[in-house]
Amino acid sequence: MKILIVLAHPEAKSFNYAMYQTAIKTLKEYGHEIKVTDLYYMNFNPVYDRSNFTTIKNSDFLKLQIEEMHAAEMDNSYAPETKTEQEKVEWCDLMIWQFPLWRFAPPAILKGWTDRIFTSGRFFKDGGYYESGTMKGKKAILSVTTGSPAETYTKDGFHGDMAGILRPINRGILACVGFSVLESETNYSVAHLTEVERNTVLEKWSIRLKNIFSEPTINVGKY
Amino acid sequence: MKILIVLAHPEAKSFNYAMYQTAIKTLKEYGHEIKVTDLYYMNFNPVYDRSNFTTIKNSDFLKLQIEEMHAAEMDNSYAPETKTEQEKVEWCDLMIWQFPLWRFAPPAILKGWTDRIFTSGRFFKDGGYYESGTMKGKKAILSVTTGSPAETYTKDGFHGDMAGILRPINRGILACVGFSVLESETNYSVAHLTEVERNTVLEKWSIRLKNIFSEPTINVGKY
Repeated sequence: MKILIVLAHPEAKSFNYAMYQTAIKTLKEYGHEIKVTDLYYMNFNPVYDRSNFTTIKNSDFLKLQIEEMHAAEMDNSYAPETKTEQEKVEWCDLMIWQFPLWRFAPPAILKGWTDRIFTSGRFFKDGGYYESGTMKGKKAILSVTTGSPAETYTKDGFHGDMAGILRPINRGILACVGFSVLESETNYSVAHLTEVERNTVLEKWSIRLKNIFSEPTINVGKY
Repeated sequence: MKILIVLAHPEAKSFNYAMYQTAIKTLKEYGHEIKVTDLYYMNFNPVYDRSNFTTIKNSDFLKLQIEEMHAAEMDNSYAPETKTEQEKVEWCDLMIWQFPLWRFAPPAILKGWTDRIFTSGRFFKDGGYYESGTMKGKKAILSVTTGSPAETYTKDGFHGDMAGILRPINRGILACVGFSVLESETNYSVAHLTEVERNTVLEKWSIRLKNIFSEPTINVGKY
């Protein structure tokens, strides 16, 4: 199968980077075809403005959704780096996002990737949401790390439940454009893992990935 | 009172910009002192990495939380633009974020502002969360616009309820560091407003702001 792995972490020695490398290695070993988007390495610009397009629909008043629809009509007149990323998303059978939870959401560099890539007219399309979304038939999974421990991310925990924190992404973006969403891979307090614990988690991730295509999808439908 | 208004929109003709200007004008008229953070105008860099600090705790392995704690100990050795923004947040009695909901979350430029500004050791502090948080006594409000209509952002609506979408911010960041959170100002389908409707909404916002300090805070505690 074809797999896109998106990484948002600035440190090559980080646990996130190790999870990313483990995914690449494991999935290649199992014969999958891999493409990657290492956002910090690419120096990806997350600020969304007119530079995301090579055409202009209205030079007088920037309405991004209008420009997005226009770009879709104009043979996808997005900026080259945006087009490349959009094509990777459309190419894959499975998309993995590997990121640390910063301030209860993905790092800005990943948020900006979603701002620029998941455009109206190409991904979000009238009459084609959820079960009939443009990305129908593809799977997606968030692989998330935290600083705080697991018990703080439960319904009655200090921060509230992780499913609720991730739901705007899992439901609002991924499921809405048609992805079948898999249970998020969540690893907590990763900065405090010992070498042995770290290797155990990486091994668990590797084992999970072997059978990732036979996992059931989760319900992200209702709050 | 002292009020900080943070804006994240690239278009000066936008409804968001009009809401921002209305807030400035109204609050000044009522004798408040205003500071602003217009993120696109400032060309704010939302990518969080080592450049957020002027000191280094560990040059070999970047762990951002460790660097944050270290910077707090080293007389706040954050990058100058970060320090300026942190001081604005600490200065204000009320903080308003004015932004469009893009891909079910704030624009990356605002997400990155939270990544870089709300650091551990200065805002998130052990033993000082929620009721005893560092920002205790201050109020905060999100003023959000959407493309989709209001009925899609209800519990049984197409996208799920807006309170759930905003909860990671209202609870995870604002309430967690001690802000008393006010009911979000939500305006839907703003691209489709007529001139008359637009003026009506702006007038409503202006009226709301007059009594903003007497509004009750909302419960963001539980999912």
